[in-house]
Amino acid sequence: VERTLRAAPLSEDIDVLVFLPQNNSYLFSHARVAPAILYAQRRLEADGGPYSGFRFNIQFENSDCVNDALFALVDRSCGQKPDLILGPVCEYEAAALVRLASHWHIPVVSAGALAAGFSNKNGEYSHLTRIAPSYVKMAETFTAMFEHFSWRSALLVYEDDKLERNCYFTLEGVYHQMSDYNTKIYSIYQEDRLDTEDILQNMHDTEVVIMCMGADKIREIMLAAHRRRLTNGNCLFFNVELFNASSYGNGSWKRGDMFDNDARQAYASLNTVTLLRTVKPEFENFSMEMKRSIEKAGLHDCDDCGSVNMFVEGFHDAMLLYAIALHEAMRSGYSKKNGTEITSHMWNRTFEGIAGQVSMDVNGDRNGDFSLMAMTNFEAGSYEVVANYFGVNGTFQLLPAFNIERFTLKGRSKTPTELS
Amino acid sequence: VERTLRAAPLSEDIDVLVFLPQNNSYLFSHARVAPAILYAQRRLEADGGPYSGFRFNIQFENSDCVNDALFALVDRSCGQKPDLILGPVCEYEAAALVRLASHWHIPVVSAGALAAGFSNKNGEYSHLTRIAPSYVKMAETFTAMFEHFSWRSALLVYEDDKLERNCYFTLEGVYHQMSDYNTKIYSIYQEDRLDTEDILQNMHDTEVVIMCMGADKIREIMLAAHRRRLTNGNCLFFNVELFNASSYGNGSWKRGDMFDNDARQAYASLNTVTLLRTVKPEFENFSMEMKRSIEKAGLHDCDDCGSVNMFVEGFHDAMLLYAIALHEAMRSGYSKKNGTEITSHMWNRTFEGIAGQVSMDVNGDRNGDFSLMAMTNFEAGSYEVVANYFGVNGTFQLLPAFNIERFTLKGRSKTPTELS
Repeated sequence: VERTLRAAPLSEDIDVLVFLPQNNSYLFSHARVAPAILYAQRRLEADGGPYSGFRFNIQFENSDCVNDALFALVDRSCGQKPDLILGPVCEYEAAALVRLASHWHIPVVSAGALAAGFSNKNGEYSHLTRIAPSYVKMAETFTAMFEHFSWRSALLVYEDDKLERNCYFTLEGVYHQMSDYNTKIYSIYQEDRLDTEDILQNMHDTEVVIMCMGADKIREIMLAAHRRRLTNGNCLFFNVELFNASSYGNGSWKRGDMFDNDARQAYASLNTVTLLRTVKPEFENFSMEMKRSIEKAGLHDCDDCGSVNMFVEGFHDAMLLYAIALHEAMRSGYSKKNGTEITSHMWNRTFEGIAGQVSMDVNGDRNGDFSLMAMTNFEAGSYEVVANYFGVNGTFQLLPAFNIERFTLKGRSKTPTELS
Repeated sequence: VERTLRAAPLSEDIDVLVFLPQNNSYLFSHARVAPAILYAQRRLEADGGPYSGFRFNIQFENSDCVNDALFALVDRSCGQKPDLILGPVCEYEAAALVRLASHWHIPVVSAGALAAGFSNKNGEYSHLTRIAPSYVKMAETFTAMFEHFSWRSALLVYEDDKLERNCYFTLEGVYHQMSDYNTKIYSIYQEDRLDTEDILQNMHDTEVVIMCMGADKIREIMLAAHRRRLTNGNCLFFNVELFNASSYGNGSWKRGDMFDNDARQAYASLNTVTLLRTVKPEFENFSMEMKRSIEKAGLHDCDDCGSVNMFVEGFHDAMLLYAIALHEAMRSGYSKKNGTEITSHMWNRTFEGIAGQVSMDVNGDRNGDFSLMAMTNFEAGSYEVVANYFGVNGTFQLLPAFNIERFTLKGRSKTPTELS
């Protein structure tokens, strides 16, 4: 009886164009992320659910982080445009593609395009939905800490590869978010020699140093700061590690060279901001299947190959979010071709993603949850999560492992708020 | 008899898509440039010539210096791509469009896209032909002078509007070309207050100052330099005025304010690099007709509205160059759809343009001829051309009005080459 009362599932064929690199050196390569999208498709199309009438015709195109995405879109779209676009991830490639897709009113959902510029949805990025937290969202973690601890000044040090510029865009997000604080910027070009003396000079009058760069350069700077006794509380050091958190914290100071002992001591002053990872029972199935798919694809040439990173998770959830929005839009009488209407249904809502709750803000950008990691065992030089930041309500939560000593500036005058 | 021996003209229909702004504030607006393109079309299609079998179907699309050109191209190209694209002029808009057109093997000929980056024709700009001399070509004028006068150091001062960035790209070309010299860069943001003190400080150890910015800011800097006695030969001053040369030199120092007398004295040290203008009898017809067309279009709201600028002339010649190249390619058995072949015929050749000889280098970029203007009547404060630079053979030619006194650094040690 219940069966006959239930409304028949809505039927629709949806053409999906997915932009992911064939090149496996990316964390968001086709071999890694495609299984997550196909997993979501199978789940959505499985009998019984509200979306089981949707048939996704998923086509994959290469993304080369330059122009391939745009070229592929226009080449194949002569008279036949897709209904939904997933990706690309890389900033410059995404910019060109999202402009065109928005012009065509095609929804784009990406786990990338994290740069601050994409936040402006009034103009050329109107149809972009960001299913992973942007760099500006990450930066909220810093403003929450600055407010909580009454810090006032920061030096942002980043390495610029002049290509994809992930670290440039990461700290651009921080700079953007920290406009109320005294922030200075120091950029290092990848090919240049690292001038640690010059960097230390620039730390002179700042309380907090926030870094984004390769692990070896971080170590070099921390060793130099340690030699100059800057790690005794005169300065607080942070680095940002968004995408490969699991490879961090388990001995990144260790190289098996004569500096390991100094590095371990120096890293006691280095704290890391990374994504907060949640896990629920359903996630284990997903994770296992992702591992199997990646092994089947013959992807063995990397650490962390089998782990579910932000991109893998994000593109999976992109499928769910789109299905929910399309479903709502169709119930209200709109067709899949009304990308503007569907996009609006993806924004300002919370839904259950593969790893936990996903909260989208009114601007179509995901609210982010981040963890702060710090060394808690100084002999072993091992790290733990000591605090969390929850983007949806802006709360900063200290955990039992948190040690206030390590976040207090020494040899500095007290701030007015502390005196009052 | 002669008639029957002559081969029948080749026939072909050519779809041309032209990107020019409807907004008349541009020197290359539709109202200004379209008449030149139509003029060239009429001449080419007129009976008797080798190109009289060509029928150009010319369609105009708006260019907004942002995304319009790309959007228009893909919107109308679904299954029906043009054979030739003229424009766009603005750097950022051209970059996106030329990438796509090159990907589709469609020849693009523009009197813009002058930035250094477009010189690289091996990759994404492979089908771009530049019918006006690029900024790097202009910069050869400076390297020719630096070599001739044995100068060694330069300060490049430019105003950045963060939008179209003409002055940024102009001096980028100079910087690019002057890699053998000691060059420093000083940028001024359009909205910021002009800090002349700081600029003068930066002139301290440079011989030559090269400026690109609005006329009022140039005047402010020259007045400040004059007050500090930097205009007495300690430093040589240049500015670059490529597009509206006729409005320059006839009293740009004059404002009718209390500083006019000082400004006139200061400008005695300011020299201007601008395009060399040639005129031949045929050009007068063209020029007259352009004036009439522009008046008919109701374009009265600007100085220089009726004058034939680099863009107007360039887009006219673009039509000629394409016709010559297509004609050759067809004679060799290629069709109009082989944009790669046609493009190669446009490069490394010299032809007779509307105002004089046009020489294209092996890289598909026009060789430029430039003039150096200097004040020659100090009482009237009037200017004359004192030297010319010819890009095709790299010669720097001094004219009778040239005064070596004005190009000699004072209070400086002689250079080694002068001593030997």
